[in-house]
Amino acid sequence: MFESRFQSFEDIVDPSHGPARLAALRAELARQGLDGFVAPRADEHQNEYVPPHCERLAWLTGFTGSAGVLVVLGDAAALFVDGRYTLQAPQQVDTEAFSVVPIAETSPEAWIGKWLKRGARLGYDSWLHTPAQVERLRGAVEAVGGELLACKANPIDAIWAERPEPTPAPVRVHPARLAGETAEAKLKRIAGALAADALLVSDPHAMAWAFNIRGGDVAHTPLPLGYALIFRDGRPRLYLDPRKLDAATQLALAELAELRTHDDVLGDLAQLGATGATLRLDNATVAMRLVQTLRDAGGFDELGPDPIADMKARKNAAELKGARAAHLRDGVAMTRFLAWFAQEAPKGRLSEIDAAKALETFRRDTKKLADISFPTISAAGPNAASPHYRVTEKSNRRIARGLYLVDSGAQYRDGTTDITRTLAVGAPSAEMRDRFTRVLKGHIGVARAIFPKGASGAQLDTLARLPLWEMGLDFDHGTGHGVGAYLSVHEGPQRISKHGHVTLEPGMILSNEPGFYKAGHWGIRIENLIVVEPRRIPGEERHMLGFETLTLAPIDRTLIQPKLLSREEIAWFDAYHARVRRELSPHLDAPTRKWLAGATKPLARA
Amino acid sequence: MFESRFQSFEDIVDPSHGPARLAALRAELARQGLDGFVAPRADEHQNEYVPPHCERLAWLTGFTGSAGVLVVLGDAAALFVDGRYTLQAPQQVDTEAFSVVPIAETSPEAWIGKWLKRGARLGYDSWLHTPAQVERLRGAVEAVGGELLACKANPIDAIWAERPEPTPAPVRVHPARLAGETAEAKLKRIAGALAADALLVSDPHAMAWAFNIRGGDVAHTPLPLGYALIFRDGRPRLYLDPRKLDAATQLALAELAELRTHDDVLGDLAQLGATGATLRLDNATVAMRLVQTLRDAGGFDELGPDPIADMKARKNAAELKGARAAHLRDGVAMTRFLAWFAQEAPKGRLSEIDAAKALETFRRDTKKLADISFPTISAAGPNAASPHYRVTEKSNRRIARGLYLVDSGAQYRDGTTDITRTLAVGAPSAEMRDRFTRVLKGHIGVARAIFPKGASGAQLDTLARLPLWEMGLDFDHGTGHGVGAYLSVHEGPQRISKHGHVTLEPGMILSNEPGFYKAGHWGIRIENLIVVEPRRIPGEERHMLGFETLTLAPIDRTLIQPKLLSREEIAWFDAYHARVRRELSPHLDAPTRKWLAGATKPLARA
Repeated sequence: MFESRFQSFEDIVDPSHGPARLAALRAELARQGLDGFVAPRADEHQNEYVPPHCERLAWLTGFTGSAGVLVVLGDAAALFVDGRYTLQAPQQVDTEAFSVVPIAETSPEAWIGKWLKRGARLGYDSWLHTPAQVERLRGAVEAVGGELLACKANPIDAIWAERPEPTPAPVRVHPARLAGETAEAKLKRIAGALAADALLVSDPHAMAWAFNIRGGDVAHTPLPLGYALIFRDGRPRLYLDPRKLDAATQLALAELAELRTHDDVLGDLAQLGATGATLRLDNATVAMRLVQTLRDAGGFDELGPDPIADMKARKNAAELKGARAAHLRDGVAMTRFLAWFAQEAPKGRLSEIDAAKALETFRRDTKKLADISFPTISAAGPNAASPHYRVTEKSNRRIARGLYLVDSGAQYRDGTTDITRTLAVGAPSAEMRDRFTRVLKGHIGVARAIFPKGASGAQLDTLARLPLWEMGLDFDHGTGHGVGAYLSVHEGPQRISKHGHVTLEPGMILSNEPGFYKAGHWGIRIENLIVVEPRRIPGEERHMLGFETLTLAPIDRTLIQPKLLSREEIAWFDAYHARVRRELSPHLDAPTRKWLAGATKPLARA
Repeated sequence: MFESRFQSFEDIVDPSHGPARLAALRAELARQGLDGFVAPRADEHQNEYVPPHCERLAWLTGFTGSAGVLVVLGDAAALFVDGRYTLQAPQQVDTEAFSVVPIAETSPEAWIGKWLKRGARLGYDSWLHTPAQVERLRGAVEAVGGELLACKANPIDAIWAERPEPTPAPVRVHPARLAGETAEAKLKRIAGALAADALLVSDPHAMAWAFNIRGGDVAHTPLPLGYALIFRDGRPRLYLDPRKLDAATQLALAELAELRTHDDVLGDLAQLGATGATLRLDNATVAMRLVQTLRDAGGFDELGPDPIADMKARKNAAELKGARAAHLRDGVAMTRFLAWFAQEAPKGRLSEIDAAKALETFRRDTKKLADISFPTISAAGPNAASPHYRVTEKSNRRIARGLYLVDSGAQYRDGTTDITRTLAVGAPSAEMRDRFTRVLKGHIGVARAIFPKGASGAQLDTLARLPLWEMGLDFDHGTGHGVGAYLSVHEGPQRISKHGHVTLEPGMILSNEPGFYKAGHWGIRIENLIVVEPRRIPGEERHMLGFETLTLAPIDRTLIQPKLLSREEIAWFDAYHARVRRELSPHLDAPTRKWLAGATKPLARA
């Protein structure tokens, strides 16, 4: 009945190939005259999801996490992973061959400082590192008298016999009706923002936004991989594999830019460098290889944030209209899922995978699902205590009495969604209700916040934590990340976190997702997407901002301890539920509508 | 009856000497072969209050503000001041000779970039700038093809005929009973924290703390000016003018350190440099002259925060005991003032200066007042709308019906205080009560905050603003600054502000002073000092912290709109007032005690 097409629950645990592949790599390094190699889990664009032919780390070691760095020396190989993967990595790799190192305890640079021998030559692939990353590595290597060298060719590719070919997924034009601004207008705005002679667009999200195109080269984000050059004066150039473009798309893009093949970018950078041009380069994503090519030819680099990131972050009226439509549609699917879950879960036969498949199926039923926006976190009991849990056939738990957490999202052509709900199965304990209510208070604190123009996400993050702090509790992740418009579900620069010093501007979409995790037992998180909007207040002296909540789905009332909520918090909650009911009901069948009416009954009984 | 001994209300407005002195300076610059000169309002230690012989900017221009930079070129002279002084400066200087430039609009560097001629030689006094300040200047000067040169001698001193001699105020030993830790123990801790061969202590606050000494070289802060060298291994050296030391003090200090004269520091740095030593230098206060001397001799500098700053910020048990005693004493004086004010102000005959004199007199009555900790801000009506207002004979207003704000503090040997109260004269308007209550809510939000170890002041600043933000209002200063223990009333690194990213640690004293300012009409601020303390919470999972309020004085109940306060806020307020009454009453005469009883009646009527 239910199935998953966009997510696999396969257990990728096969450490068996690691030792042989590591030995082959060492032989290849010797052939290249190197004593070691640094292999990050990265592609040429520092993408979160990388295409299959860039999954070198997974192929070599068995480790499938979304972040990590391997450093191979002659007599040691260390895989550096963050807190999300300290348990998973040792299960996926042969720990005799690879030592797994928590990166918070020892950085690759510190490790290199300890293990690299004087005079040793450490290689790296300059396509896979940004200049800042290279500088950090170089500092560590040179401090111990070693040498850091860019390899001519990636030594892993040389031994990876069945390395997949890049699959040229079709590029589609993202209609102006959804984009809200023509690519011509965007390109003009970008050119006008440049001090340098040109901007090299190395972030595919930025390229997709600027040219109003979408693609399919990586999972869960509709990215076309490629580059663009946008000149202060002159015709832009777009570097895309021509096999990705059908005749109509090619025609449309040729109106905007000179179309070049993906491989032309190096030659063009060298040519520009030779004229002494200065290029703006995106310090977050540009590959060292590109910077070096420009420099070697005599050009100048101006490394800094890509100006497109700020423009892309502020959604226009059409993008917000799309986001609202996407959230209405997603809310219908989510509510059908919640009603189904409320009926099925108490029978005690559902598993985490069953629930994830059901949710994806309800979303596919909308007929508009382009992809899920990330692998669904479907987590029962103790699995939910890991905020980044991913369910596999092996980890799959039966959903028993207690708490179940589901964090999921969709890619629709009009908008990207991301929602977390925590659901009680059976009667929740007093502790669960207390903690859930405090997380809800934090969520409402952010949702209701009114703040002056100029304030940053760092200034709001505390609001999500106060009700937990009061009890000596906290959660160890940020409160919210930026979200794209039919682009990445994790988008910068906006965020709500103590490190989020970017000013919040009208039109920015963020998540609002405080949580609480009881290690070994259960986890709670409540997530809606919110958008920054101007707020007019009678008598105001400042330009004030607030949030519109985009996500539409009920929050489990049975987990609330109403005594802990203030009158204002109850008013917010009841108004939210009334809106959810009002907006979703016309799109639901009678039984689901009835269930929703019960699920959204006011807390305040006048 | 009342008098002021520690503060003058003189109007220092005499722009008449400016043009002649500026002409003399230009002649002196020509003599030295310079085309311009940069004169900051600074001494050799980047002190907030500078000794009279360093008031070069005031002597030359007439400007007496506590911050500013003058840049003199052949055909232009610009005085850069911040928002506090954009009104005052043009009144104090001859604006034909000096153009006053708001520094927020044009930095000295930007101005130099515009006005300095190619090949021009700009001089500066390397005793009065830190290396970072010099680097910024140098960047601006060299960008336009100029040259930045350290002058052999300050050209202003060459023309300042009656420049006062430094007055060697006596240095006194700060007793271990108040310091809570012997200087021996502190010096050992500091030596143990060093990676470099030695630390040059250039911040007199740090020197005073480390050696348990106090002095009197500047106003309002008991600083001895001088330097120290603390070696990782070896006997410390203390550089002080020997005339400041009586026999007993000399004997006591000789136990701790080799005593050197103030002028030996350059020679010793050169000698250390010649051995190839590495010195830790305080990037916030060290003069470029000292850095250059070390470098020229072949030594190495490690520029960074002085490790003493962190140690000094965390007050020990004896310092906190002293602070509590100081605040009790100060609370008695303040309450006598408030009772007097309540009786006198309605008669309509008091002026701002009358009130400031009375308050100082009540403080002197304690017999323990060493100084006031800064010039009292005594501000009636519209004067209070400037957060940094200073009353002079000319600005002095009659205290009429409406609001009166008094921000003041004391230096006692056991502690430094800083308190602001806003008082109603006659019946306040609804708007005043609304705003006052919101400021109070912000104050209580900070005072009641519970937060995890590791949190910074930036994470708490928002709590002080939420009740104002809700109405589209805000205030344009930080919520709190650090405070020393019988040292500066403005102490780093701790602060509560969106820029305060230093972790709050137990023992740190801070102010809690949200405000609201209605330009042209009135101002409100409520300030208590608070100290970070550990908080145990049943069931806690984290180490939590909170604040103990040190300041003891009633907050004007007649300005409160109780309907705006939550139950918890009323409980905090009534408990605070009950504590104020309980702790102060035994030290008050009967009429004042009676007045206090009325002023601290609970808001909650059960």
